[in-house]
Amino acid sequence: MSAIPEDLVRRTRRLGRAAIRPFPNSRKIYVQGSRPDLRVPMREILQTPTPTAAGPQPNPPIVVYDTSGPYTDPDYEADLARGLPPLRAPWIAERGDTERLPGPSSEYARTHPAPEALRFPAPRPPRRARAGANVTQMHYARRGIVTPEMEFVAIRESQRLEALRESGLLVQHRGEAFGARLPREITPEFVRQEVAAGRAIIPANINHPELEPMIIGRSFLVKVNANIGNSPVTSSIEEEVEKLLWAIRWGADTVMDLSTGRHIHETREWIIRNSPVPIGTVPIYQALEKVDGRPEELTWEIFRDTLIEQAEQGVDYFTIHAGVLLRYIPLTARRVTGIVSRGGSIMAKWCLAHHEENFLYTHFEEICEIMKAYDVAFSLGDGLRPGSIADANDEAQFAELRTLGELTRIAWEHDVQVMIEGPGHVPMQLIRENVERELADCLEAPFYTLGPLATDIAPGYDHITSAIGAAMIGWHGASMLCYVTPKEHLGLPNKHDVREGLVAYRIAAHAADLAKGHPGAQLRDNALSKARFEFRWEDQFNLSLDPERARAYHDETLPKEAHKLAHFCSMCGPQFCSMRISRELHAAASAQAEKGLAEKAREFREQGGELYRKL
Amino acid sequence: MSAIPEDLVRRTRRLGRAAIRPFPNSRKIYVQGSRPDLRVPMREILQTPTPTAAGPQPNPPIVVYDTSGPYTDPDYEADLARGLPPLRAPWIAERGDTERLPGPSSEYARTHPAPEALRFPAPRPPRRARAGANVTQMHYARRGIVTPEMEFVAIRESQRLEALRESGLLVQHRGEAFGARLPREITPEFVRQEVAAGRAIIPANINHPELEPMIIGRSFLVKVNANIGNSPVTSSIEEEVEKLLWAIRWGADTVMDLSTGRHIHETREWIIRNSPVPIGTVPIYQALEKVDGRPEELTWEIFRDTLIEQAEQGVDYFTIHAGVLLRYIPLTARRVTGIVSRGGSIMAKWCLAHHEENFLYTHFEEICEIMKAYDVAFSLGDGLRPGSIADANDEAQFAELRTLGELTRIAWEHDVQVMIEGPGHVPMQLIRENVERELADCLEAPFYTLGPLATDIAPGYDHITSAIGAAMIGWHGASMLCYVTPKEHLGLPNKHDVREGLVAYRIAAHAADLAKGHPGAQLRDNALSKARFEFRWEDQFNLSLDPERARAYHDETLPKEAHKLAHFCSMCGPQFCSMRISRELHAAASAQAEKGLAEKAREFREQGGELYRKL
Repeated sequence: MSAIPEDLVRRTRRLGRAAIRPFPNSRKIYVQGSRPDLRVPMREILQTPTPTAAGPQPNPPIVVYDTSGPYTDPDYEADLARGLPPLRAPWIAERGDTERLPGPSSEYARTHPAPEALRFPAPRPPRRARAGANVTQMHYARRGIVTPEMEFVAIRESQRLEALRESGLLVQHRGEAFGARLPREITPEFVRQEVAAGRAIIPANINHPELEPMIIGRSFLVKVNANIGNSPVTSSIEEEVEKLLWAIRWGADTVMDLSTGRHIHETREWIIRNSPVPIGTVPIYQALEKVDGRPEELTWEIFRDTLIEQAEQGVDYFTIHAGVLLRYIPLTARRVTGIVSRGGSIMAKWCLAHHEENFLYTHFEEICEIMKAYDVAFSLGDGLRPGSIADANDEAQFAELRTLGELTRIAWEHDVQVMIEGPGHVPMQLIRENVERELADCLEAPFYTLGPLATDIAPGYDHITSAIGAAMIGWHGASMLCYVTPKEHLGLPNKHDVREGLVAYRIAAHAADLAKGHPGAQLRDNALSKARFEFRWEDQFNLSLDPERARAYHDETLPKEAHKLAHFCSMCGPQFCSMRISRELHAAASAQAEKGLAEKAREFREQGGELYRKL
Repeated sequence: MSAIPEDLVRRTRRLGRAAIRPFPNSRKIYVQGSRPDLRVPMREILQTPTPTAAGPQPNPPIVVYDTSGPYTDPDYEADLARGLPPLRAPWIAERGDTERLPGPSSEYARTHPAPEALRFPAPRPPRRARAGANVTQMHYARRGIVTPEMEFVAIRESQRLEALRESGLLVQHRGEAFGARLPREITPEFVRQEVAAGRAIIPANINHPELEPMIIGRSFLVKVNANIGNSPVTSSIEEEVEKLLWAIRWGADTVMDLSTGRHIHETREWIIRNSPVPIGTVPIYQALEKVDGRPEELTWEIFRDTLIEQAEQGVDYFTIHAGVLLRYIPLTARRVTGIVSRGGSIMAKWCLAHHEENFLYTHFEEICEIMKAYDVAFSLGDGLRPGSIADANDEAQFAELRTLGELTRIAWEHDVQVMIEGPGHVPMQLIRENVERELADCLEAPFYTLGPLATDIAPGYDHITSAIGAAMIGWHGASMLCYVTPKEHLGLPNKHDVREGLVAYRIAAHAADLAKGHPGAQLRDNALSKARFEFRWEDQFNLSLDPERARAYHDETLPKEAHKLAHFCSMCGPQFCSMRISRELHAAASAQAEKGLAEKAREFREQGGELYRKL
């Protein structure tokens, strides 16, 4: 085994401790599945009781989806230089359809040993499907097999709602789901059906056993992806690992490592070994690095080797821009912002330089063969997505989308999982068409969208411009939302930007779940609003997406502990607090009800609700 | 005249200088109307030329709506202790239907001289309609009179688009306007018709001659309101004046002074005298102060005196919670968050304490008489708006809304202008119903909504949760969006929060304009995106809603001046910049087009766009 890069190890350990401290008044729980090693982590937020005249009334703990991995388990001792425990290793091994390789099979990994100072100290020997085997979750699903991954996902998505059936907190509005199936109970069999039908994917490379399985599909909770990665101008391995930890803390369901700078292979190794969430990449970025940044020198062989290199590290999904066809490129010529997808512009340049069809398209079946040997899912890239409001929903975009539909069909012939990437920049009135076309052209494969930004005019605030579009497209049927940070269009996000972007997108995803009427989606809103109305400030902070910030903003003007019990905040002060007055009313109204006020209201309603009387 | 409070004067002058510096590379322009004193201010953002092989190609200046008042005119010497020049004074005087009063007519103003240290040094003697006269813009409009205010508004809304007809920058997507009338040209006569019909209002108290007229209505640009005001716990007069300046700088179309703390009258005087935008208040807040915070001690007489006091200071619109009827109060008893409107809870408490009907409802015609003597517009308050997702669209809310419709009819009998306040907290799928009911029940009176927040779970980020709802409700037909700052539910916003809230809401309002297809709405997006694609970084910053932040974020990683010309940013670096590659492609594609590539694309489209071919 290689020597340990002591300095990097020491530094990553330090940052690990800072980024992964548990949330206040929360505890990690595990819901036991059908086998001893199937334990699904969740976060339980404890609440204080409601004080009443009849004594304190307890409030139930609220369980929330937890993307933070073992780090937030106080019994787990994190060591970023060792990586996470291989949760799924026994599941993969038991299936008996994979084999451990003697070493990496890609040419690149064999000939480019990592510089010692950057090498991940505890590498994991790669596995691959046995000859002729197909190890994708879709393949199992289609053969009727419910894998532990599917059961894990079913328990995870169910969020232990059954424990709260009696609490009154599960009341919610009727949603509008635009055709998404939202069963009251999510069973492992339902998960299997959705994966088999291609309506959902479980990105789970056999070389990423550390991963806690999750699902992306319109029948499930809307997910959020965070992009991290260095650039040639800035950042280091430890900054990227820190962004990973920061991302899962703030709710990233998957993370894409979009590194384009130095040490792409080594950065990715550190990220995957420490990631409890699926990792996606855009392999063409690294392939381009291998030809010194000259798109025209890219070849299928270099790309193919990169796919194998990354698949054996454990990347769970690949963005592949196979829909950028030679004949579509002129369709972008009159656009305001041309081609804004990096992968799209690289492939377009290759096509034009050679005047040949995109090699990702012509070699698509060979790519499928690689994907199914490791269970890497496709994220079919939208290389021609609009980069401005002006270019939204144009011919280039929709021509590519139709091609992605055809490629989906081919991937599915190989039982390879597929999701479809979407825009971009789209004004609100054109958002719905994007979903409708995607569902129709791509056969309901999950839609994974970047925003979209609802306007172009607010660089510096594009987490907001895009959260608007993201909430709407999630409601209409997008399954995963790729976050946008405040730095979009301006620079590489740092960890603080990662937090801003993620919270904005957790808001968008949750707003979409609410609007769809996802079962139990309103629970956390109900609990938080009840806490707010009852002046349980601590509970209000703890139930929020960002307890630290909620508390800090409150404490800016009222820092004392006593104010955490006060029946007002600095916004209105005690005299004007509507919540306080309203709670007094509550009591008064109950008393008056006995005197007939409720009677009058009923009478009024029975009279047909005609309110106006001459004054 | 009173002695001048020197200390306050000195301090406000200092903050004036800081808050009102002009935006970079922008210049104040004035569009001349039909009379010499009718000059409509706008902001023109200058652009640099596009470098091309054929030499630099000029880019036209982009005119944007300007709420910042005379402060950003370099020829104007601001003096907050003197107040703004009375732009409208001659227009008001010429109409000959008002008279100057010897002094304030409210009991309160006559008996409560301002403490010397807080007194505004240059008070303006109040005016009132002559006996029997009606001085509202609606009254003039209905009699066929086009006032200078209406002409001002028509020019302002037109935004000088005609100057860009040939530029190619006015191309935009077809909108979906849900029945809003969006004429290509906004004439003074069109403005008159909309005001006469009650579909739009021009809040413009005759005692606020400093105001630059603006219009609120579904046929016009979506507007944004910023709430400021002190609370008993925090803030001072100068902080509030600073928030006003900060608010108009960042795009507030109107400002509500919601002060509930000390020196409400004096704070408001400083604000109105220095405000180029309409000022709204909730008079019941001050009335409550006059009875030491005890709602049950409120009387019609105290309230009436407060209306006159504020109308004579120049408040442009009053929130009046006249729809909170006694019989509706029990409808809120089962809510998760009861009554969350401060005014609503105050009136509900009064009703219950006396077991009498809301005196704002029983005295509504008398209120109309006061409003029309000064041209104060109604903002009919939604005292029963939902304060949580759970309570959205419930019976209490919609019962009150129907009553607001009846009150609208009464106000219109007096030719008093009306807008209707709306929620609150609403999940996305229930937003549209709010607009549809408001339009139907309230006869298309402009809808003025607070957010709504699309989820409850993100205190600390409610500018984002609510920008999502605001963008959607603006699209569907709300005319003005009341901003929410990051401090909502947690504390009193400071000036930084005012900026965050306003930019989020300028985004929401603009996204709504785009989605409606408001003529010219896409201009700024088109110009900014073109600048982005051409690596005109300075233009990109300057065209954005917050040039300072866009520049600061860019400079965090690439501070050098040379990078302002670079064909990349730190996000991707030079190698991976899709914009750079795409621009190279542009050139290459043009060349290839001659060789037949465009021909192929056309052939493909003519073949019906069937893309798939067996690989």
